[in-house]
Amino acid sequence: MPTNKPKLSIGIDLGGTNIKFGLVTKEGRIVQRLNIPTRAVEGPKAIVARIINGLNYLLASRHCKRPPGAVGIGAAGLIDHNQGIVHFSPNLPNWRNIPLKDWLSNKIRLPILVGNDANAFVLGEYCFGAGKGKDSVFGITLGTGVGGGLIFNGQLWLGINQAAGEVGHTTINPIGPKCRCGNRGCLERYVGADYIVARTKRRLKTEKSAISNRSAPLTTEIIAFAARRGDILARSIIEETGAYIGIGLANVIALLDPAIIIIGGGVSGFGRLLLASIKKTVNERIMNFPQRKVKIVLSKLKNDAAILGASQFEKFF
Amino acid sequence: MPTNKPKLSIGIDLGGTNIKFGLVTKEGRIVQRLNIPTRAVEGPKAIVARIINGLNYLLASRHCKRPPGAVGIGAAGLIDHNQGIVHFSPNLPNWRNIPLKDWLSNKIRLPILVGNDANAFVLGEYCFGAGKGKDSVFGITLGTGVGGGLIFNGQLWLGINQAAGEVGHTTINPIGPKCRCGNRGCLERYVGADYIVARTKRRLKTEKSAISNRSAPLTTEIIAFAARRGDILARSIIEETGAYIGIGLANVIALLDPAIIIIGGGVSGFGRLLLASIKKTVNERIMNFPQRKVKIVLSKLKNDAAILGASQFEKFF
Repeated sequence: MPTNKPKLSIGIDLGGTNIKFGLVTKEGRIVQRLNIPTRAVEGPKAIVARIINGLNYLLASRHCKRPPGAVGIGAAGLIDHNQGIVHFSPNLPNWRNIPLKDWLSNKIRLPILVGNDANAFVLGEYCFGAGKGKDSVFGITLGTGVGGGLIFNGQLWLGINQAAGEVGHTTINPIGPKCRCGNRGCLERYVGADYIVARTKRRLKTEKSAISNRSAPLTTEIIAFAARRGDILARSIIEETGAYIGIGLANVIALLDPAIIIIGGGVSGFGRLLLASIKKTVNERIMNFPQRKVKIVLSKLKNDAAILGASQFEKFF
Repeated sequence: MPTNKPKLSIGIDLGGTNIKFGLVTKEGRIVQRLNIPTRAVEGPKAIVARIINGLNYLLASRHCKRPPGAVGIGAAGLIDHNQGIVHFSPNLPNWRNIPLKDWLSNKIRLPILVGNDANAFVLGEYCFGAGKGKDSVFGITLGTGVGGGLIFNGQLWLGINQAAGEVGHTTINPIGPKCRCGNRGCLERYVGADYIVARTKRRLKTEKSAISNRSAPLTTEIIAFAARRGDILARSIIEETGAYIGIGLANVIALLDPAIIIIGGGVSGFGRLLLASIKKTVNERIMNFPQRKVKIVLSKLKNDAAILGASQFEKFF
C-alpha cells in the first residue's frame, strides 16, 4: 500500500563558518549534501538569502521526487523553538531576535523548525546514532562553547525558558575564574576550546612538547594530533580536560541518571584518551551501587549529527 | 452517574523515627491520619507488621466505605520502584534488599507501591501543593540527607538506575571534604543537617551567640529559632547554607530549566532567610537573559507532602 507520508526531510547545521545542508531519509541516510560558507560578517539577511538558495538547490535534486516533510535548522545560542526566533547566537554576529522561521517561510513552502545546535546533536544521536533505542539520552557538545541536550521518555526536554541542557554553564569550581556568562568556574571556562588552547600555551612556556615547533596558530586539533603521536604535554592536557568534564558529567548523572551520555563537538576529537579520563573521574565521583549502569560514549555520527538531528526537529518540538 | 473509581488512597511516610499514614481523597485532603513510632532497631519484620496493623486500622475507618485505590509508601534510600524492594535505607538499619511490596501484598489486598521519599515529596507538591499545574518541577528535600525528585511533562523521572534527582550528591566543590557517598565536596556534605550543626559548633568556639546557652543537644531547629530572634551567628549559618544550596540549584537550573523548584525537608524550616540566600546565589550564577523565569519556593505541604505524594504513586510509576 503506497503511503503519502513524505520520505525525506531537510536538516541544516548553521555554524559560524559553514552552513551544512542534508536531504535525509527517514532512516537517517543523507542522500544529498550541500556545504556553503556562512560568511557570518555579511549579517542575517545575506545569510538567510544563501540558506534559501541552498534549500532551492536541494529541492531541485533528483532525490526530491516529492516535497520533503519539513526543514529543520540548528544554530548555536538562545533560540525560541516555538516561534523560530534566534535571539542571540555566539557564532553569528549581529543576530539579535532574528525571526528566522518567518523569513524562510516567506520563500519556502514547507514547515520550518529552528532549534538549538546541542538539541540537534542529541536528537541526531537519539534517532540514528549512539542513542538509538535508549529512552533517555544526555548529549554534550564540546567546542568553543559547551552545550547539551536532554531526552527523557523519548521526549526532547527544552526547559521552561528553552534553556535546559546547559552543562557548559554548570559550576565545577565555585571559586573558579569568571565565565563569559557571568558565573564563576563554569565547565565551559575550563574545557571550551579556546580555554584548552590558552591552558596549553601557558604550560608550553615551561614544559617541553612537540607542539612548540609549529607555524600555525595552536588549535585543539593540533593538540589531538600531538597526543596521538605520544606527546606527553598534549596527553596531559587531554587527561586534565577529561577530568574537568567528568566532574560536570558526574553531576549530570546524579541529577538525571540517563541511559547514555554521548559526547560530541570538535573537542571530542580528543578521542579515546579523553573518554577514558572522563570515565575515570565519573567513576570516582558518582554514587556507586551494585548493577549501576552508566554508559558514556563518543558521538557515532560525528559531523553529521546536527544535520540529522535538525532534520527530525518536526517530530520533537 | 455514579462512578466505581476509588475516591481514596493511602499514603505512608516511612521515616527513621515515625511512620505516618494518611487516608487521602483524590483532591489531596487527608481525612484520617495515623502516626506510630518506627522503632527502627526492631528490624524490618517487626516494622512491616506494624505497617500492616496501621493499614488495617485505616481500612476499618468510617471514611473507608469502599476500598482505597492503592497504598503508596515512601522511604529514604535506594528503592526498586518496579519491584517494591528497599535495597538500602539510611534511616532503617538492617534493611537490605527487603521486598516490602511482596511482604505487604501477602496481607493487604490492594495495589502496593514503594518509592523514594524525595519522589514522594515532589509528587505531593506537584499534585496538591506548590507545583500544582506546573509541567516541570524539581523538588529538593533538606534533612540529614539531601535528596531530590524531578517531574517533566507531568511525568516522574526516576532515572535508568532509579537514582535520578540526587542533588545532594552533586559536587559543589571539587576539592571539598569527603562525603558519605565516596565523592568529595557534595552538596549534602555542606548542608546535610548534621554538617550544619557541626559547622555551627565550630563557630561557637570563637563567636558569641544565644545558642551557646542551651541544655539540649544542638539541632537545626534550635538554629532556626535563634535566627528568628535575631541571633547573628544563627543567621549567618543559615545564609551560608543558602549560598551552598544556591550553587547546587543553579546547576539544576542550568541542566533542567524547570518551571519551579520546591524546597522541603526539616532544614527548609530555616524559612525565608534561607530562601532569600538561595535566590541571591542562584541569581548570581545562572545565565541571565530577558524574560528568564525561575521560581524557587518553600514547600507548601510541609510535613504532609510525602504522605500525599506516596498516596499518588500508583499514577506515576
